[in-house]
Amino acid sequence: MSRKIVVIGANSAGVEAAIMARKTDRDAEITVVTDESVPTYSRCGLPFVLSGKIPSFEKLIVYPLSLYRIMKFDLRKETRATRIDTGGRAVEVETKAGEHESLEYDALVIATGASPFRPPIKGLDKEGVFTLHTLKDGEGIARAMKDAGSAAVIGAGYVGMEIADAFVTRGLKTTVINSQPTILAKTFDEDMSLEVQRRFEERGVELVLGRRAEAILGGDRVKAVVAGEHEIPADLVINATGVRPNVGLAREAGIEIGVTGGIKTNRRMQTSAEDVYAAGDCAETTNPITHSPALPLLGATAVRQGRVAGVNSAGKYSTYPGALFSVVSQMLDFEVGATGLTESWAREYGLDTIAGKIRGHTRAPYYPGAKPITVKILLERESKQIIGGQIVGGEEVTQRINVLSLAIQKNMCWYELVKADTCYAPSVCEASEPIVMAAEMAARKF
Amino acid sequence: MSRKIVVIGANSAGVEAAIMARKTDRDAEITVVTDESVPTYSRCGLPFVLSGKIPSFEKLIVYPLSLYRIMKFDLRKETRATRIDTGGRAVEVETKAGEHESLEYDALVIATGASPFRPPIKGLDKEGVFTLHTLKDGEGIARAMKDAGSAAVIGAGYVGMEIADAFVTRGLKTTVINSQPTILAKTFDEDMSLEVQRRFEERGVELVLGRRAEAILGGDRVKAVVAGEHEIPADLVINATGVRPNVGLAREAGIEIGVTGGIKTNRRMQTSAEDVYAAGDCAETTNPITHSPALPLLGATAVRQGRVAGVNSAGKYSTYPGALFSVVSQMLDFEVGATGLTESWAREYGLDTIAGKIRGHTRAPYYPGAKPITVKILLERESKQIIGGQIVGGEEVTQRINVLSLAIQKNMCWYELVKADTCYAPSVCEASEPIVMAAEMAARKF
Repeated sequence: MSRKIVVIGANSAGVEAAIMARKTDRDAEITVVTDESVPTYSRCGLPFVLSGKIPSFEKLIVYPLSLYRIMKFDLRKETRATRIDTGGRAVEVETKAGEHESLEYDALVIATGASPFRPPIKGLDKEGVFTLHTLKDGEGIARAMKDAGSAAVIGAGYVGMEIADAFVTRGLKTTVINSQPTILAKTFDEDMSLEVQRRFEERGVELVLGRRAEAILGGDRVKAVVAGEHEIPADLVINATGVRPNVGLAREAGIEIGVTGGIKTNRRMQTSAEDVYAAGDCAETTNPITHSPALPLLGATAVRQGRVAGVNSAGKYSTYPGALFSVVSQMLDFEVGATGLTESWAREYGLDTIAGKIRGHTRAPYYPGAKPITVKILLERESKQIIGGQIVGGEEVTQRINVLSLAIQKNMCWYELVKADTCYAPSVCEASEPIVMAAEMAARKF
Repeated sequence: MSRKIVVIGANSAGVEAAIMARKTDRDAEITVVTDESVPTYSRCGLPFVLSGKIPSFEKLIVYPLSLYRIMKFDLRKETRATRIDTGGRAVEVETKAGEHESLEYDALVIATGASPFRPPIKGLDKEGVFTLHTLKDGEGIARAMKDAGSAAVIGAGYVGMEIADAFVTRGLKTTVINSQPTILAKTFDEDMSLEVQRRFEERGVELVLGRRAEAILGGDRVKAVVAGEHEIPADLVINATGVRPNVGLAREAGIEIGVTGGIKTNRRMQTSAEDVYAAGDCAETTNPITHSPALPLLGATAVRQGRVAGVNSAGKYSTYPGALFSVVSQMLDFEVGATGLTESWAREYGLDTIAGKIRGHTRAPYYPGAKPITVKILLERESKQIIGGQIVGGEEVTQRINVLSLAIQKNMCWYELVKADTCYAPSVCEASEPIVMAAEMAARKF
C-alpha cells in the first residue's frame, strides 16, 4: 500500500516538503491542505509589488496549479485543518462549505507558518489599518494607497522597512514608528542600523524610534497614530510588528512547543509526536553558534526545512543543521544583509566578541558606478572565529553574506578569511575585498 | 641603524610590499625602483579605458605620488635594476640619464612583474600592432582606435576578451584569433567557454579558434592577419597571448627559478637567496589543491603576496597559503569568474572529478531584471570536496566565486554546501541559490 503523507500549509515550507516527498516516493499519496484560495505565492515579494518594482501580484505565484497536477498532489484549497489526532494518525479538516473529513496519514508535515502579531494598540481594527501577510492583504493595501497621502508603518524590521520604501517611492509621506531605539534591531547593531536609518531619512522617511505606538485615532477610518509625544497623521497604517508561529493545532494535539514559541523539532525536523514533522515559520530549530533554540522566521530557512521534512516524511533520511539567520533585503537604492550573531545577541549568550568594521566600495574607486559599502564582522574572542556579519551597501551584499555564512558554518577564524583567495576585477570589486578588510580590522584589536 | 629595504618594481606587488614594510617598521629606509615614469597604476583597468567605461587613463593611477611621500619611500623613477649582488647585498641600478648606483639592502623584494609574450608571428613589429601592458600601451591603442575600422585580437584569455569587448563596444569590426579551440581555456572548461563564446558572437565578434596567427600582412602598417585558412583584415592588431614572468635579474643573480618559469618562493615569499623575497607575477607559488608549483599571474594574488613579502622583509612573520587562481571579469553585459581547477586541469594532476551544472537566475524569476546565470561546480570523486567552480552570469558573479573559493580553502564537501545557510530576497537572488543547486546536481552523479 502506498504511503499517505499529509502536509498542512501550502506555503514555501509545505510545498517544498511535498515536492521532496514526491521525489523521494513516487507512489505516495500526498495531500496538501491550505485555507487560502490561491496557489502558493512568494510572501517575500509582496512589498515589491507595492513599490511597483514587481508589476503585479499575479507574478508572485511561484508554484502554479500545474505543479500540483504534475506532482500528483491532492490539493485541498480553502480547507482548514481543525485537529491533529497523533494517536489515530489523522488530521481533521473542514472545507469553506463546512464539510468535515478525516485525512489519515503515515507521515504528517506541519507547515502552518506564522501570523501577524497584533500588538495591544487601541484602534487597531479601524478601517485603513493593515498587515502585509497574504496576497489579499497586499491587494488591499495597494487599493488603499491610491487614495492615501500619508502612511505610518508600525515596526521597523525587514518587512516594515520594505513597506516604508514602497510608500515613500510611491510618493506617500511616510513615518516609521518603532518601540526599539533602532531599526532592524534583530540583525543589526546600533552602529550599522544608523547607516540604514540615515539613508531612509535622506529619502524623507520620518523615523519615530524608541516610542511605542499606543493608539490609532480617527472615526471608522484611521486618521493618525499616537506614539509617545507624537501624533502622526496617516491615511494608512501598517502593523508590521512581526509574526508569531501558528502552533495552536500542534499544541492542542499535545505536540511539544519550544521556548521560542515554535514547535520543537530535532535535526530531522521531527516533532515530539511520532511521524509528525514541522517545517518553516512554525518550527523551532537550533542556532549552531549558540546551540540554543532558534526561531528564524525566514523564507530560505522555510524552504530548506521543508525539503528535509519532505524527505523524512517519505521514509528516507535527511537532516537540517540549524539556522544562522542569514538574511538580505533591498531597500531604496541599497542592500542590507546579516548572518550569525550581532554584538548584543552574542552578549545575551555570554559570548565575548571583537568587532571589525570597514567602509569600502563595491568596485574600484576609479570605476564608474562604484557604490559605498560598510562591512562589520564579529569574532568570538577566544576562538577568534567569525560568528557574525552585517553589511550595508549599494550592491552585491547577498553573496558577501553567503561568504560570511560559509565562514561561520566552517568555524573559520579571522586569519583564514584574511588569507582567502578572493577574486578581483576593477569593474566588480576592490582589490582589497571589504569583508577581508573588516576581518583585518577586527584582528588588530586582539 | 635602520633597516634598508629595497623593492624592485612599483607595481601592485611592489607597492603593497613597501607599504606593509613601512607599517611593520616605521624607521626602515625603503627604496622603490621602477623603470616606468608614472606612479603605480591599475593594470587591470586598462581595457576598461579603451571601452570608455573608465573615462581616462589618469583615473587608473591608484597610488599617487603623495602616497610615496606619506610613506617616506625613496622612489627611483625611470631607473632600471641591472644586477642583484646577493653576496654583497646590493642592487645595481641605472637611471634613464645613464647614472649608476649601488643600493645596499638588508632585505630585497623582487617584484619585477611579467612582460607580454612575443609569439613567433611574422610581421609582429609592424605599425598598428600593440600589446596592452602599460599605461603607454593603452594610450597608443586609444590613439590607433580613432582611425581604425577593424581590429584583430590574438589570444583569448581574460585580457584578450576584455579588449575585444572594448573594440566591439567602440564600433570596430572585431575578430579574436586563438590557437586553442576555446576561449578563456585556462580557467573554463569547453562547455562553459561556449556560453561566453555565444555571447561574444551574438554581439558580432568573430572568433577564429583552433588557428594559430602565423603572419601579419601589410607594408609598414598592418593590413591583415593570417591564421590558418583565414586572412583577417585589420587596421589594428593586439597581441594578447599572455605574459611571461620577468626573472632575468633573479636568474643572473643565481636565484632559483621554478618549473613554471617564476622565481621559486616558500610560504614566506622567500627566494633561494638569503633575505631576498619575490612577489607578484614574477613569483612562483603553490596550488593548495594539487600541492604543485603555480604561477597565478593575477592582480589580487600580487597584492596578497606583496603584503606578505613586505612584512617579512621588515623582519616580522607572515605567510602566503598559495593560489587558488580565483578570477573574475566583466565583459559586454555579463560577468565571468572561476576558482580552483577545471576538469581538464584536474585530469592533468590525476584527479578524478564529478561536475554539476545548473542554469538559474540572478534574482527571483518574477523579479524584473533577473538575468541568467550558469554555475558549474567540480568535486573530487573520493573526498567529495569542492575543488573548482566556473560561473557565467549577468551579475553578482564575483562574490559567488569568493563563496566557492572559501569552500575550497576549507575543504568543504558538496554536502556542506548543500546545507549552507544562504540568504534570500527576491530582488537579489533566487530562493534556491544556483551555487547550492550546482553542488546538488554534482552529488546526484555519485
